[in-house]
Amino acid sequence: MTTGIAELADALLAGQRRALAKAITLAESTRPEHEGQAQHLLTLLQGRAGKTIRVGLTGVPGVGKSTFIEALGVHLADQGQRVAVLAVDPSSARTGGSIMGDKTRMPRLTVHPNAFIRPSPSGGTLGGVARRTRETMLLCEAAGYDVLLVETVGVGQSETHVAGMTDLFVLLTLPNAGDELQGIKRGIMELADICVVNKADTNPQAAVRAQTELRTALTLLTPHDAPWRPVALKASALTGEGIPELWAKVQQYAAHVDLNAKRYQQTAGWFDELLREAAWREFQRQTGTEVIHRARQAVQSGDLTAVQGVEKLLASHRETASV
Amino acid sequence: MTTGIAELADALLAGQRRALAKAITLAESTRPEHEGQAQHLLTLLQGRAGKTIRVGLTGVPGVGKSTFIEALGVHLADQGQRVAVLAVDPSSARTGGSIMGDKTRMPRLTVHPNAFIRPSPSGGTLGGVARRTRETMLLCEAAGYDVLLVETVGVGQSETHVAGMTDLFVLLTLPNAGDELQGIKRGIMELADICVVNKADTNPQAAVRAQTELRTALTLLTPHDAPWRPVALKASALTGEGIPELWAKVQQYAAHVDLNAKRYQQTAGWFDELLREAAWREFQRQTGTEVIHRARQAVQSGDLTAVQGVEKLLASHRETASV
Repeated sequence: MTTGIAELADALLAGQRRALAKAITLAESTRPEHEGQAQHLLTLLQGRAGKTIRVGLTGVPGVGKSTFIEALGVHLADQGQRVAVLAVDPSSARTGGSIMGDKTRMPRLTVHPNAFIRPSPSGGTLGGVARRTRETMLLCEAAGYDVLLVETVGVGQSETHVAGMTDLFVLLTLPNAGDELQGIKRGIMELADICVVNKADTNPQAAVRAQTELRTALTLLTPHDAPWRPVALKASALTGEGIPELWAKVQQYAAHVDLNAKRYQQTAGWFDELLREAAWREFQRQTGTEVIHRARQAVQSGDLTAVQGVEKLLASHRETASV
Repeated sequence: MTTGIAELADALLAGQRRALAKAITLAESTRPEHEGQAQHLLTLLQGRAGKTIRVGLTGVPGVGKSTFIEALGVHLADQGQRVAVLAVDPSSARTGGSIMGDKTRMPRLTVHPNAFIRPSPSGGTLGGVARRTRETMLLCEAAGYDVLLVETVGVGQSETHVAGMTDLFVLLTLPNAGDELQGIKRGIMELADICVVNKADTNPQAAVRAQTELRTALTLLTPHDAPWRPVALKASALTGEGIPELWAKVQQYAAHVDLNAKRYQQTAGWFDELLREAAWREFQRQTGTEVIHRARQAVQSGDLTAVQGVEKLLASHRETASV
């Protein structure tokens, strides 16, 4: 089996699309033996990634995300860049938004020789999906893809995850932004490095207004000393207007921000997050969820202060773990 | 000593200002025997709080926070309300911003019979200061204060803490908001339930413009289904303009939002946060910070993936704790 994994690594490094798809399936599997194999594969591929740029994209339903990503992807793939499209979307995973769905919604990109489209991993919690997406990104990079477009559905938590694993984050909005942005959860806009008013062709005047409004909001949200000042653009995935300008901004961003330092920090942050989660699960396992539940109820009913509740659980944990 | 604490509780419940000050000093103490006494005192006072409204306030240096809080405090105290002013400010605590400082900067409120001013707890981390501020709030409420004004200095993290322990959060800004808001950290504005353009008397036209800009930004930041839509007001602490209108908004907020449900949720959230922190400290203590540090370095240098690093530490922890 170890031989099989080494061969898979070689095929993937050689740029074989089927090997990449197989490797991602392995990374997404929740079967324990697959998890071990996937980790082994990732070890073999460590340090083999090329110079990739990772772009996160989000926007409310109806903003035209698929069409936009296809337009951007085809624009880049036509220039000879190898483009991988990944989706982080636990909800559509649950409702069965799968390969056929993704292939249907990006018909031109699907058949492009320079493109690789991977739908949302099926099943699992958001944390699990985010974890697999990180590993899928590493696999795509080892396979020689130059651009990773990571799409989320705007449900809130997943955007924070994607912003934490990409080099920059693009928020798509509609020309009537005043209304449409209402649908965007608190906090999404301040993740954005670039905002794009999509479907600008449908109402050019409204698009200009929306762009101005966005610019004001972004200015208010960004501190003076930020290494990058978020910009508001407008585009039309349908006519192709604004797509090259967006990509020029992405490149400007990449030249402006120290991406190595950013990724280094993201990796450390991801490790710390995983470790704290693991520590918390260990604590729950050792202390017992029922015991924790009772203490929380005592705090909520006012029988204990929060500090007292925690101290009680700590004492109980030390007794159980006897360390 | 238990008798002493019971007497202190009685004196505090009777509204004796000296007893309140002594109780807060006890709650702020880091001496282990004081911590036990403080928790005992809090238990005696459980459920004795009256109907208090907790208002968090922040703004960049120069926005006129002290003058504003004094104007608001005197306005309320003159109407017969009992007002307590608390500060959450670990940095000024470190540099020695202390009782005399606070008394000098709010001269009228300091001598008002209905007011109680408490400076930042001295020393300690932000988390520690936040913890003590929560307990200080409980003590003030048991002592019969109707309004708690909790001030922060706009350094970022402390605002999130204060927003998590108050009923509503007020952000003070200046008339030239476009420039001034730059100094506000990302994320502060979206904590705000009410924004106030202070010093409106210095430049009435700019104040109206700033109010409009803030209104746009707040609209963009607030989802449609929010129980409260943040408002932008203008005021002048110097002339007193806008202070009664601000308070009317606070009351409107209190009538509009289910504060009991909000506090219930805050308490549960605070308990969970403390417990996760405690679990994490236990994990570090049992595993050893040096071992964790080495794993993090291996992840950052690319020798291990984040998942592998965590799994290695988990295995090491289970060996050490042998459970």
